[in-house]
Amino acid sequence: MSLRIETLCTGDELLTGLTSDTNSRFFQTLLLEQCGLTVRRSTVVGDVREDLIEVLDTLAARCDAVLVSGGLGPTTDDITIECAAAAAKVELVEDERVMAHIRARFEKRGIALTENNRRQARIPLGSEAVLNDEGSAPLIIHRRGRCTFFFVPGVPREYRHLVATYVVPKLAALTQRSTVTKLRVLKTMGVPESHLDAKVQPLLAKHPNVTFGYRTHAPENHLKLLVTGADEPAVLATLTAAERDARDVLGAAVFGVDDETLAQVVGARLLERGLSLAVAESCTGGLISAACTDVSGASSWFPGGAATYAASAKTIWANVPAALIDAHGVVSEEVARAMATGVRSALSASCGLSVTGYAGPSGGDAVNPVGTVFIGVATPDRVFVEKHRFGGDRARVRLFAAATALDALRRAL
Amino acid sequence: MSLRIETLCTGDELLTGLTSDTNSRFFQTLLLEQCGLTVRRSTVVGDVREDLIEVLDTLAARCDAVLVSGGLGPTTDDITIECAAAAAKVELVEDERVMAHIRARFEKRGIALTENNRRQARIPLGSEAVLNDEGSAPLIIHRRGRCTFFFVPGVPREYRHLVATYVVPKLAALTQRSTVTKLRVLKTMGVPESHLDAKVQPLLAKHPNVTFGYRTHAPENHLKLLVTGADEPAVLATLTAAERDARDVLGAAVFGVDDETLAQVVGARLLERGLSLAVAESCTGGLISAACTDVSGASSWFPGGAATYAASAKTIWANVPAALIDAHGVVSEEVARAMATGVRSALSASCGLSVTGYAGPSGGDAVNPVGTVFIGVATPDRVFVEKHRFGGDRARVRLFAAATALDALRRAL
Repeated sequence: MSLRIETLCTGDELLTGLTSDTNSRFFQTLLLEQCGLTVRRSTVVGDVREDLIEVLDTLAARCDAVLVSGGLGPTTDDITIECAAAAAKVELVEDERVMAHIRARFEKRGIALTENNRRQARIPLGSEAVLNDEGSAPLIIHRRGRCTFFFVPGVPREYRHLVATYVVPKLAALTQRSTVTKLRVLKTMGVPESHLDAKVQPLLAKHPNVTFGYRTHAPENHLKLLVTGADEPAVLATLTAAERDARDVLGAAVFGVDDETLAQVVGARLLERGLSLAVAESCTGGLISAACTDVSGASSWFPGGAATYAASAKTIWANVPAALIDAHGVVSEEVARAMATGVRSALSASCGLSVTGYAGPSGGDAVNPVGTVFIGVATPDRVFVEKHRFGGDRARVRLFAAATALDALRRAL
Repeated sequence: MSLRIETLCTGDELLTGLTSDTNSRFFQTLLLEQCGLTVRRSTVVGDVREDLIEVLDTLAARCDAVLVSGGLGPTTDDITIECAAAAAKVELVEDERVMAHIRARFEKRGIALTENNRRQARIPLGSEAVLNDEGSAPLIIHRRGRCTFFFVPGVPREYRHLVATYVVPKLAALTQRSTVTKLRVLKTMGVPESHLDAKVQPLLAKHPNVTFGYRTHAPENHLKLLVTGADEPAVLATLTAAERDARDVLGAAVFGVDDETLAQVVGARLLERGLSLAVAESCTGGLISAACTDVSGASSWFPGGAATYAASAKTIWANVPAALIDAHGVVSEEVARAMATGVRSALSASCGLSVTGYAGPSGGDAVNPVGTVFIGVATPDRVFVEKHRFGGDRARVRLFAAATALDALRRAL
């Protein structure tokens, strides 16, 4: 039998536009991978006592397990645990082990313990505290009837540590799994979502045991394949067959799977062929370099990238002749080409990649309005320039330009 | 009387770890600014018919207005509108204006209309469709008793357009506001959250009409000041007095307010003093350049930045003598200093900023383990190097190093 699991995130800042919940994806992914389960529903409430108590009661009545995050900090607006105790009608008691842990952490870092830090050692009577190696507030495991609540801090590092080390393993043990779930995500560039759907529709009848889904992670569109069954080899075989057919219809648009990033895929392909990449960016101003260096081990294939924002920087770092810039303008096919080949030779790399364009809000002209971006690609085999026009605001143009440039290099390799 | 407003986001991908909701912050911020209202609760459900119908019924019973996003696409897993009609027990009907709009969009872009695109023109009988300038699916306004549902697509560009242009203005009209709310966020670097709280606690008694709150947006910690009242000048005066006192206790740790980014603040300060900045990054590999060029108008103060990942790139682009690297190693005070002064002279800038360190997971030694980062700052007045040690994984070390470097420059200016 499948457990009904929900999540609750608390904090006014999640409802007033100050921040968004970036933790839940981490839990959801582990839960699916390690327990074959998905979260049924997710709720966010503010630091409002009556709302918190009402939601905790509702969740206790309908769930087998609930992951509650946030509101465990030392400050006076951290009221999650008080509300949990109030909802369950039990007292709060100071846990000595937690208090000793907090005291030791502060001593080790030479920071004075403030009175409000004691708040973090108080837990509902009858619940269990698991010490937190990454912070002060413990994981609190609190049972109400058939429902187990796991209270964790909202600080991402602490959340991830406690969820991965304790919460998900405990849920896996509760599950007593009789089914296996496998997910495969095929990531594409350059295919609109409705076209993705149209291409994939014919596969549905052929693969009745596969759930097909889509997500947009601009500028990428992803196809999800989900298979659940009793037998792992059979589930994997079903998934593999569907993936093969999906790859057939999608072709080169598929750049990677699951957690792979475009930069990782480009890096792996360069490494396979013993190549290296130097980058010169104008309007993307470092986004491509940042994406490449986000890949662990990038130093094997990425000697460097220059954010050549000023025209002079294009000349100094990417060997673009000043006369060429004067003749054609910085946003031009000629300059994009010269940046790609110039930065390649500057760092003695085997490939060069360049971007120059108008990200907006100002700039551009009638021929090349805001959104126009030239992408220069230089590989050992050939040199070419692509001209694109991206809609949307400055951030969107930059995002699309950076990803499209990496994808152009991927396809060229 | 204050409206009770909630949000509902739909989509399996929001519950299986594939993506997170990044739209809601946009709505929340506008709602607070333009209507003085906050969202009371936020719910995420998957593409599960019974869950969607149950939640829509619950929301209809307790809310004045609900913003529902997602599930309006052309694909077969987009079921939000079907469920809305089923929950309200009304039929779905094709809206001719919406159908004409969709047809025109596809013709203009030369893309073939697929049969599933027709799905996007079907709306619950008796509801109102507002055409979407940014996409196919309309905004659907659907009333059930005292509750007004606003259905919008989840695609961020379309969501933002429809929410800003139609949803928030309609909510503002519904509000008939008798109160004014003003929010001020003071953004700090270098102060742990519990210390922020301890410093701010003494102000609470002095400013009883101000709600103080905190949020962590690593590596920044933010202090929120919220004031609600009947009279705008009085609300502003209360807020200003609290802000002044908070700035007194927090001092130079406050780098900016509200939407300001650290890079914006650094850029504004450089511009004020007629200075420019060149950057050389090793372990942060482009993050600082990307943050600087994210600021519109950065070309006035940012000529360029080099992601000098390989040792040779440090020599070629940032004039760091190869012998210096050999003598001290790339992660050293000497190389950080040479990168900052060298990149400054390479682009003839007035300031230089550099980062070199071990982001991990590999690298480092006993003296300088993973997480060790040297930050070099060169201003017209002085040149100095800071040594830091950041905990956490590769992404966290890079994030903290980039922000701390910008903050070091800010404090030096």
